[in-house]
Amino acid sequence: MKLFELVGCDKDNGFSPFVWRTKLALAHKGLEAELVPLHFSEIRNTLEFSGSKTVPVLEDGDNVISDSWDIACYLEENYSDKPSLFGGDAAKVGLNLLSLQIGKSLLMPLFKTIAADIHDVLHDMDKDYFRKSREQRIGCSIEEAAEDFKTPLKLFKGNLWPYSQHLKSEDFLAGAAPAYSDYMLYSTFLWARGSSMKKIVDDNDPLVDWLSRMDQLFGGLGGQVKYIG
Amino acid sequence: MKLFELVGCDKDNGFSPFVWRTKLALAHKGLEAELVPLHFSEIRNTLEFSGSKTVPVLEDGDNVISDSWDIACYLEENYSDKPSLFGGDAAKVGLNLLSLQIGKSLLMPLFKTIAADIHDVLHDMDKDYFRKSREQRIGCSIEEAAEDFKTPLKLFKGNLWPYSQHLKSEDFLAGAAPAYSDYMLYSTFLWARGSSMKKIVDDNDPLVDWLSRMDQLFGGLGGQVKYIG
Repeated sequence: MKLFELVGCDKDNGFSPFVWRTKLALAHKGLEAELVPLHFSEIRNTLEFSGSKTVPVLEDGDNVISDSWDIACYLEENYSDKPSLFGGDAAKVGLNLLSLQIGKSLLMPLFKTIAADIHDVLHDMDKDYFRKSREQRIGCSIEEAAEDFKTPLKLFKGNLWPYSQHLKSEDFLAGAAPAYSDYMLYSTFLWARGSSMKKIVDDNDPLVDWLSRMDQLFGGLGGQVKYIG
Repeated sequence: MKLFELVGCDKDNGFSPFVWRTKLALAHKGLEAELVPLHFSEIRNTLEFSGSKTVPVLEDGDNVISDSWDIACYLEENYSDKPSLFGGDAAKVGLNLLSLQIGKSLLMPLFKTIAADIHDVLHDMDKDYFRKSREQRIGCSIEEAAEDFKTPLKLFKGNLWPYSQHLKSEDFLAGAAPAYSDYMLYSTFLWARGSSMKKIVDDNDPLVDWLSRMDQLFGGLGGQVKYIG
């Protein structure tokens, strides 16, 4: 298997939250993939064969799958003898809704919080592209985002409340053991951890203990991620 | 079975969103309960036997269960021969998280939107209690809430986005057929429909078609709810 991912200057430090969903899903299934690190500027040409303009793209023999959710569904279906990612059809439908929730209420404000930090860890050849495309998305300049990160960070933290509450009664989002819902949320934190020094969770939040449980999974796969500016 | 519920002036028009979750869960299981309508002021004394200070409370033979989530779990476990509400353990854990999401992102802003309307449909004996307890919760007077309903309504509508998106690809939140996740969201709308004239969904929203599908379930159980001011 080959997994195409996005990196900044440091080729060993992929930080795309959607690629992280796939990395964790592969680890959950006990599968290994060779990582192919790409800069933004390399993605379009390299991934032309896949029909996708974004990472992750997974090559598994003759199968080429893009989009982290489609990859998770592919792995669940084609490696059904391995531990389940979703826990059944009803849970799978719920995860689609959860992914939309996370996108709207967490990824969006977090992106605004760390957009300038991501810009800084990118390879120079990517910086113009990132600036042009992302300034449009966040509605302000990278410099303004760097200045005003506290507003979206406050929104992000406020939107963590349901997850924190849930983790008061459960070890993992998925219950007694981690599964894909945990990977969807955890990848959000790894995104920030690999690209920013900002502290995005309060010390007394139940998410802190959950993060340390997540960090220990799969031989410390996510726990090894750190900011290298 | 007996189901204790909250009503305003109109005893046939219970509007508590949590009681609605239970009514729909009972209908999903094909079970019937005698409704016991209560005003706010009657709840404490009448429900003393249950140990709960809030509705819903369900009496099922010798069993007395309170809290809509505990009731749903009770029904799922004790009427496991009937159609499943959750669709398995993994989905059940996800529903706990969804309930927290709905509470924070929908029920809270919607309450602020319709607080003054709810006040108006209550029996006179409940109005003082409601005003005192709820003004504290929303941080402003009933009159101020009546004036400034557009701000929380905008927040509510914005937070509907993940559900609308999800319903572009699914007939129901739970997939091809309705289940407890649908009842959690639908009860939110029935709450507003029974107590307020405000329009809380835009005409072109995929939620409109979903609402009409939900209205047709169980012989039009929720579809019959209308505002009687």
